[in-house]
Amino acid sequence: MSDFLAGINGPSDLKHLAVDQLPDLADEIRRALLTYSHAHGGHIGSNLGLVEATIALHYVFDSPRDHIIFDVSHQSYVHKMLTGRREAFTDPSKFGDVTGFTNPLESAHDPFVLGHTGTSISLACGMAKARDLMGGSGNVIALIGDGALSSAVAFEGLNEAGELHGNLIIVLNDNEMSIAEDHGGMYDDLAELRVSKGRAQRNLFRSMGLDYRYVEDGNDVAALVRAFDEVKNIDHPIVVHIHTLKGKGLGDEEGSVESNHWHNPDSAAGSPLNARKTYGMMAMDALAARFDREPGLLVISPATPGSNGITREWRAAAGAHYLDTGITEEHAVAFAAGVARAGGTPVLATSATFFQRAYDQIHQEFALNQAPGTLLIFGGGISGTDNTHSGAGDIMMFGNVPGLTCLAPTSGRELLDMLAWSTGPAARPVAIRMPGNDVLAAERLGGYPTFGGTTTIGENTAGVGAHDERDITVTPTVGNPWARYTVTRAGSQIALIGLGDAYPTAEAAARELDARGVTATVINPHQFSTIDVATLDALRADHTVVVTVEDGQLEGGWGEKIASYYGRTDQTQPIRTTPMRVINFGARKEVTDRVPLATLRERYGLTPEHIAERALAAL
Amino acid sequence: MSDFLAGINGPSDLKHLAVDQLPDLADEIRRALLTYSHAHGGHIGSNLGLVEATIALHYVFDSPRDHIIFDVSHQSYVHKMLTGRREAFTDPSKFGDVTGFTNPLESAHDPFVLGHTGTSISLACGMAKARDLMGGSGNVIALIGDGALSSAVAFEGLNEAGELHGNLIIVLNDNEMSIAEDHGGMYDDLAELRVSKGRAQRNLFRSMGLDYRYVEDGNDVAALVRAFDEVKNIDHPIVVHIHTLKGKGLGDEEGSVESNHWHNPDSAAGSPLNARKTYGMMAMDALAARFDREPGLLVISPATPGSNGITREWRAAAGAHYLDTGITEEHAVAFAAGVARAGGTPVLATSATFFQRAYDQIHQEFALNQAPGTLLIFGGGISGTDNTHSGAGDIMMFGNVPGLTCLAPTSGRELLDMLAWSTGPAARPVAIRMPGNDVLAAERLGGYPTFGGTTTIGENTAGVGAHDERDITVTPTVGNPWARYTVTRAGSQIALIGLGDAYPTAEAAARELDARGVTATVINPHQFSTIDVATLDALRADHTVVVTVEDGQLEGGWGEKIASYYGRTDQTQPIRTTPMRVINFGARKEVTDRVPLATLRERYGLTPEHIAERALAAL
Repeated sequence: MSDFLAGINGPSDLKHLAVDQLPDLADEIRRALLTYSHAHGGHIGSNLGLVEATIALHYVFDSPRDHIIFDVSHQSYVHKMLTGRREAFTDPSKFGDVTGFTNPLESAHDPFVLGHTGTSISLACGMAKARDLMGGSGNVIALIGDGALSSAVAFEGLNEAGELHGNLIIVLNDNEMSIAEDHGGMYDDLAELRVSKGRAQRNLFRSMGLDYRYVEDGNDVAALVRAFDEVKNIDHPIVVHIHTLKGKGLGDEEGSVESNHWHNPDSAAGSPLNARKTYGMMAMDALAARFDREPGLLVISPATPGSNGITREWRAAAGAHYLDTGITEEHAVAFAAGVARAGGTPVLATSATFFQRAYDQIHQEFALNQAPGTLLIFGGGISGTDNTHSGAGDIMMFGNVPGLTCLAPTSGRELLDMLAWSTGPAARPVAIRMPGNDVLAAERLGGYPTFGGTTTIGENTAGVGAHDERDITVTPTVGNPWARYTVTRAGSQIALIGLGDAYPTAEAAARELDARGVTATVINPHQFSTIDVATLDALRADHTVVVTVEDGQLEGGWGEKIASYYGRTDQTQPIRTTPMRVINFGARKEVTDRVPLATLRERYGLTPEHIAERALAAL
Repeated sequence: MSDFLAGINGPSDLKHLAVDQLPDLADEIRRALLTYSHAHGGHIGSNLGLVEATIALHYVFDSPRDHIIFDVSHQSYVHKMLTGRREAFTDPSKFGDVTGFTNPLESAHDPFVLGHTGTSISLACGMAKARDLMGGSGNVIALIGDGALSSAVAFEGLNEAGELHGNLIIVLNDNEMSIAEDHGGMYDDLAELRVSKGRAQRNLFRSMGLDYRYVEDGNDVAALVRAFDEVKNIDHPIVVHIHTLKGKGLGDEEGSVESNHWHNPDSAAGSPLNARKTYGMMAMDALAARFDREPGLLVISPATPGSNGITREWRAAAGAHYLDTGITEEHAVAFAAGVARAGGTPVLATSATFFQRAYDQIHQEFALNQAPGTLLIFGGGISGTDNTHSGAGDIMMFGNVPGLTCLAPTSGRELLDMLAWSTGPAARPVAIRMPGNDVLAAERLGGYPTFGGTTTIGENTAGVGAHDERDITVTPTVGNPWARYTVTRAGSQIALIGLGDAYPTAEAAARELDARGVTATVINPHQFSTIDVATLDALRADHTVVVTVEDGQLEGGWGEKIASYYGRTDQTQPIRTTPMRVINFGARKEVTDRVPLATLRERYGLTPEHIAERALAAL
């Protein structure tokens, strides 16, 4: 058996090998990847399929002078192995030393940190444009998978590429992404190109003004070297369509394992039941029970069903009540608005970080049009995730959209009640932030009262949401059973308001305060789209400190609204009272990269002890 | 001359005409549109081109049972004239009674309120899906222009359409959008289809799995009626490609007037020099002066140059230093990140409302990657615009992005200084909120001191931005000359901080307070990405009230950060001080539809008198 890999500390070492030695290197890398993945996990299927292509790219091109941009970048393991980072995949003591994504802080061979789908072509166009403007040289290569191609921005990039005149090489890794689900559209076109070995007249890329070349066996490293050699230093944009076998080397499972199929970073199939899956399945089961009598009820997932508890079995049983739109968040939200306005009941589920793509459609087609649909936000809040998948900004992203009702359940029961409302009597656009692991842990412990049997205070006479002028769109509170905050524990002096997954922390802080002789009020706000001014005003009677706790970014988030409310209304109260002191707890305005959650909680002071101490000091 | 139009109060009246009477009706409508546009303005070019197509649609289909969705919807004037709203275009006393966009509150014939490009296909897919799920009937028709087709979400929609099985009719209005600028990509494909009268092998739509039909003369109403009759009640998705003449009826200007060409709602060519154009031209001139010695300096506009002061003459002179990407904000931002990371200096200019499309790319490709580029935000803040083009959310959209520096100049001089910094020494991602009409008015009056000759207070010892850990991305303040607030007027008791275009209001409120015997401090914060805690802490010495003024949505905005900062730090001060009272002034969380700016200012209390009164009351 060969031992080439051990001698490769960068692309220049690779170039010393002969082409006929490369298949042996590919075998070594494939074996290493299998060993690595069994011990460590990761997106192994797409990386296995790309072993030969990545070797060929680095054999032919001269990174980092030539720029190779890996779309989404979780198929970059082989690239990392060939660019000085092989030990992170071959030495078990170093597994985990590198991130699953490319990162310029890690290597000069990584032009970008990337984790969202479809931007590689646009980025490559930009690099090519800068090179041509500044009189530089070198190749710019974007490597993108067929699954990513359905993503909106990839199309915009292809269209721009068709307008550029200089060197630009788009390598399309076609591993027949479209097999598992019934995808048509441009996937039919790719299928025709495969069948015709690239000769079909119907050719999306030529239709967009791009040159095109097909490589039938994308796992034949010599063929790839020939193809890349021929396009190296080409003077115009070209698509090199390579047909690869995803999961090559996995044996019987080759290309057939669904958990490897959707190469989305959050599709952690096989991992234990976390909050995402627990509450996702709970929600899906509740909806499925209604399918027979509600033909218009439709669950929509933009390519991320598995990680959100939408299991293969559930999908099969759901039939026409389920639709996977591919990786197309923008379309998915506008589509849901269309379903809703035509009388259907859409429920769209995906990660907070991916909803960022649909920010405009959430504002315009969904909220402004008051489309009666439900968005289920998974993975919101701070976590130990990598920097491209942070959910810490979800409260600010959704909570500030005029016209959108944003709910944050604190238990499975409350989630189901909210979902029943949003898909029924609500008749308005609603986003529900799925409960997280703190809620799940609290429910398992039975450590705090679930929704129900509690009280509201103050009269709901506030003007928020009271407009009915035609020229104004606000978030309606009328008919919303969660518009009022609930006092779950009556106390005085200090009121703790904990939003959604931060609610258990507020409860725990109250227990800390008990031990210090203060019986604090605890409040479940239920929602983060409007503030319940009746409750906030009523608190003035016997509280001087209000503490808000949220597990997301403070700036632009929810607690600041309460601080601002008290600040701007203190002096307008009928009876002049002492100004309320408001202390907001939440995350800093930063993106963190695999920083453990416990570390973040310490850093942000999001611990019951710290919250209790700060509240006491403010009395 | 015929007088059919006067008898048409809905589509059923239209159906009583014979096909050979329709050309006369088209003439009537065209004349009415010309009269209307001369008196009232509006997006007349695209409407003139669509007179026959709109007549034919309503002649053949049965709205509102059949749903007709007008993409972007500012080509919906003829539709409005035929669906009971003709007097708003024929009776001068009623001009302006209807909005320039479709709106369900106006008519049952308008399925959506739409103003952003490219979502009609997704919305139509959703309506078709709901119909098929629920066992309904009727046609769903999306009418979309060729300019909108380059927009990402339109591609996602086309791809979905290729996967649907029931009735769906996409009418592509091809008025050769690509003429004015050098657009290639899919526009070459459309050109081939036109030349071949729809028979070219290269066919983007067929490539995506869609049926296809071509109508050579899209202004021949009888031909259109035949074509629509043939596709009515079709059992699968089809694209009907109609070739129309934009501006038909304008005479010599037919199809050639650039101001009619980009049918973007903010391309108000010919209107007097407002702040957008004034400061846009100022910025463009400053950049152009550097082109000779900075080959990598590139101005990017996603299809909205004219309204932002990027004149045709300027573009011609800029040559390769200017790029119009088409209506592709997502691509444009990722593209700019690519240019930046390859050593170029991108400056991307568009409206606040359109930047919403690129929210994800601003977070990921631009800010997280710390791409050294500049985003110029036009049209931010409250205004009397329609509800689909509100800029009131720009501060919350940009100001909460970790890693992004957001500047808000209060004069032309400050804008130029900021732009020189952002395109030079900054070496980080920067967004600049272009000054608005309040700044322009103040500059013309010379009513307040411009940037310079002022002071900062407090020591800059705060930890904000002080991280340098590799696993955290924050907004850097080191090396940012605008990270510190500037005290432009020293006073006591009350400090007024006015952000960007709201700065003149803060100055005016201070003058109101002078008249009432209080000499207030006035502060120019320069930026809204970090808070200057040194200045805020120093204010505690001799102020008890801090007032923030911004011309955007309060919730999620800038002033709330200051309220929150004081609330959570008051009790941690070395010397225990009286809590600071913070009053935030800004817009409510709502979208307004053509409500005059003066009305909004009254509603939000954004007047110097009101601000002064409230500040005094809080003392």
